[in-house]
Amino acid sequence: MSRAPVHTPTASGAQALLGSLLDGGVDTCFANPGTSEMHFVAALDGVARMRAVLTLFEGVATGAADGYARMAERPAATLLHLGPGLANGLANLHNARRAGTGVVNVVGDHATTHAPLDAPLQSDIHAIAGAVSGWVRTTTSPAEVGADAAEAVAAAKAGQVATLVLPADVSWSPGGVPAPPVPPPAPPAADPDAVRAAAAALTSGEPCVLLVGGDATRAAGLAAADRIAAATGARVLAETFPTRLERGAGVAPVDRLGYVVDVAVGQLAGARHLVLAGARRPVSFFAYPDKASDLVPAGCEVHALVPKEGAFAGGTATAVLEELADLVAPGTAPRPAPAARPPLPSGPLTVQSAAAVVGALLPEGAVVVDESVSSGLGLPAVTAGAPRHDWLTLTGGSIGYGLPAATGAAIACPDRPVWCLQADGSAMYTISALWTQAREGLDVTTVVYHNSAYAILRMELAQTGAAAHLAGDGARARALLDLDRPDLDFVALAAGMGVPGERVTTAEALASALRRATAEPGPHLVEAVLPPLAP
Amino acid sequence: MSRAPVHTPTASGAQALLGSLLDGGVDTCFANPGTSEMHFVAALDGVARMRAVLTLFEGVATGAADGYARMAERPAATLLHLGPGLANGLANLHNARRAGTGVVNVVGDHATTHAPLDAPLQSDIHAIAGAVSGWVRTTTSPAEVGADAAEAVAAAKAGQVATLVLPADVSWSPGGVPAPPVPPPAPPAADPDAVRAAAAALTSGEPCVLLVGGDATRAAGLAAADRIAAATGARVLAETFPTRLERGAGVAPVDRLGYVVDVAVGQLAGARHLVLAGARRPVSFFAYPDKASDLVPAGCEVHALVPKEGAFAGGTATAVLEELADLVAPGTAPRPAPAARPPLPSGPLTVQSAAAVVGALLPEGAVVVDESVSSGLGLPAVTAGAPRHDWLTLTGGSIGYGLPAATGAAIACPDRPVWCLQADGSAMYTISALWTQAREGLDVTTVVYHNSAYAILRMELAQTGAAAHLAGDGARARALLDLDRPDLDFVALAAGMGVPGERVTTAEALASALRRATAEPGPHLVEAVLPPLAP
Repeated sequence: MSRAPVHTPTASGAQALLGSLLDGGVDTCFANPGTSEMHFVAALDGVARMRAVLTLFEGVATGAADGYARMAERPAATLLHLGPGLANGLANLHNARRAGTGVVNVVGDHATTHAPLDAPLQSDIHAIAGAVSGWVRTTTSPAEVGADAAEAVAAAKAGQVATLVLPADVSWSPGGVPAPPVPPPAPPAADPDAVRAAAAALTSGEPCVLLVGGDATRAAGLAAADRIAAATGARVLAETFPTRLERGAGVAPVDRLGYVVDVAVGQLAGARHLVLAGARRPVSFFAYPDKASDLVPAGCEVHALVPKEGAFAGGTATAVLEELADLVAPGTAPRPAPAARPPLPSGPLTVQSAAAVVGALLPEGAVVVDESVSSGLGLPAVTAGAPRHDWLTLTGGSIGYGLPAATGAAIACPDRPVWCLQADGSAMYTISALWTQAREGLDVTTVVYHNSAYAILRMELAQTGAAAHLAGDGARARALLDLDRPDLDFVALAAGMGVPGERVTTAEALASALRRATAEPGPHLVEAVLPPLAP
Repeated sequence: MSRAPVHTPTASGAQALLGSLLDGGVDTCFANPGTSEMHFVAALDGVARMRAVLTLFEGVATGAADGYARMAERPAATLLHLGPGLANGLANLHNARRAGTGVVNVVGDHATTHAPLDAPLQSDIHAIAGAVSGWVRTTTSPAEVGADAAEAVAAAKAGQVATLVLPADVSWSPGGVPAPPVPPPAPPAADPDAVRAAAAALTSGEPCVLLVGGDATRAAGLAAADRIAAATGARVLAETFPTRLERGAGVAPVDRLGYVVDVAVGQLAGARHLVLAGARRPVSFFAYPDKASDLVPAGCEVHALVPKEGAFAGGTATAVLEELADLVAPGTAPRPAPAARPPLPSGPLTVQSAAAVVGALLPEGAVVVDESVSSGLGLPAVTAGAPRHDWLTLTGGSIGYGLPAATGAAIACPDRPVWCLQADGSAMYTISALWTQAREGLDVTTVVYHNSAYAILRMELAQTGAAAHLAGDGARARALLDLDRPDLDFVALAAGMGVPGERVTTAEALASALRRATAEPGPHLVEAVLPPLAP
């Protein structure tokens, strides 16, 4: 443990915090500081081991921390400015909470003596933090900040969003005492009765579905699940939005539970037993009139092997699947996906041809950050046999995660290509992530699917039945779902933030652009123009 | 009251809500809807009286609602998607709360039957809303949504952020009953003892400062305050960040209390009496080691005439100032600012010359939205004698308010030119407001002060004493405050969102650009390149 700058009798609270984070293995900090964080910035100035990455908006910092943790298998820190800075980062912390990846938020606050005066930036930080955090604490003295930080790191290592509120005077005062790491809380244990019951169900001959999530969507968990399927005839599905799905040639393949309710209902139809490994009981993403919210079929028995927990590798869900596989499928081997790529298509871009280009060209070892929303519906099929890769998804459903998560993933994996497959509407929530990608020289290739609409909402207008209840001729409703007046120019936006881009309208041009972008170092953006939706 | 589409027996909850908003005088809705809001969108489709304005990010919607209310003198609605959508809008709701302008947030939620299932987008909306709202309620049935909306509108008219959570099934179910408007709560009454004590103090010959805020920073309140000053020798100051400061030729001029602590301390030094009219007891914006947080000088008596309240015109603070003026300054007239403009400067742009260009050209009746931060320090002096205008400021200190507030102000005041004076770093928080300005064809002229740094934080690094405690050579700290790698190109960013722009480096070019932008309809952006800060 390198503590040279912090173990002096005059260490500030900020220095002790920094030392404790580093001792706990947190060495990356996505930052958007303000006045109350200046002493933390001053402490950072002398500690090269902590990589501080500036973002232009807090939602980029928190989304990057999530993407980083999914790939690095350990949490990063964020540095946020008071309640409003935390609020700006909250949507992507919501996604991180659902991902179970863990983040250590350091939120600067007014000095303890200043807070009661209700200065303009005063707000209820705990109320805001509580909505997304598994662990929240305001540290009250430099002597305690080290121990508080160690606890925050431990909570984050267990997959929780941990928020440490750091008053400015605690940060700047001497007397800081770094603390050694604290072991994370023990992961939840498997339920032995559920494992026995699941084993009995799987060998009963009755129709079984095995739904995997959390850490079990990695190669080891999928291999165990596939062994069970091969031996018992059970069907394996992954949760709809996995934190990190390992897939491609050599990995046991898995379909994901559908986002569209009718699809999901069809996938689960007829199941008599539903075995949950690292996944929650499946529910529809939204409620719809006259459709089920609880997706478990009538008469289906649910066996939850282990509570939903953090999603870092080596968790209980994988272990219990392996145990179950040894019980019901001894000697059965998993069936890895064969290598297979679609041919490169040609002609004007469509959702299908754009997906096929990705399938044809996805590089070995890619990290795919998927916020393609409706434009990505064809992607899973055409990439199933691509070289082995990781697929990161929108775990919490709060859009604006793609560009930030790709930024963090690229920092976690400097030797792997990161492809960010990004819907146009969602891109605009956190577009300034491109600037951080340029500043840090990250190898991120962003494909923006440009269909000039919140196309998913066009679909949801119908699914919710609202399309049948339009109070007018539909024009005013469509104006709230369409993005074509004016049309966004993502190449210009990228250029404004130092990222080279090109706009493509054919499959051939998309292929050329992706090859160039992947071959050249640094970030690139490809605006893939899709046919406009029907009015 | 026009209720044609909503007073049918089959009105949905959404239709009843819409009718009640309109009946309450809320006819503008800044929207970023999602699936749970589709039935509200369907209801909007038939109601041309409600202007629905699409934003690409919720922080634009909430900031626009604030800017709209400051100029329209009545609240707008927002339409936000679940907890994360509200969270994205929270920072500008924080500013609205501090402004006292009132907003009606309609936050869609999962159906009441769906919420207990903890679907991915489920979160604690009340916890998030509570941090900024004076009024929060989840409406539980279509029969109640109208009455709940009427109460929300009343709270917003009293200057509160009012958040109405609308579950999807309440929105889509029949049985909606619109409700007539509810009178807003009575404004706070003046404290007659404080008024008498203030009158005695002002006529005592002892040094007095009169600090005005809230509704008293409008022409009527300032005239009354100036009469008091003229008759008694008291010094008048406006709060540091007023909601809406009327100023320019013909309006009694007022200095604002300084943001920099030492400046504010100097302004208040020697005061024996501090009379507060619509302003809070003054505190420093941030705490600093070895500096006072409470800015009231030792031995100074504080007379709070009226509690801080909403900032709509015609409030109690103005009335009580007029009463006080009639007591201590009968027959004394206010002293309006004379018309005066600086000459047009020439040569390379500096903070000073850029300010002078604004002073020389600010059009009659302009609405100035000021998020210029450090680049705007010279603006008040050179615009004091410009034609009469309104000056809107960053009331809550949460940056990213300028572009959205200008958007809302332009919708409230279609016949007035809106000039948005915008710092570069702050602009990036809510840059997509430019797209909404283009879509709506708003007459907004944005000047981006481009100094490629969070210059205010450079200053705060010194003010907080952190600059003296840099743990290294300063390079790593500066990297968190500087925006020059890569340099942002705001003309490209604006072009990407359909807003014409130009980049200027001289005073002459800034003047030409401002003239063109103001003469042509629709939004324009001028990137004013300032000298880089010293390293």
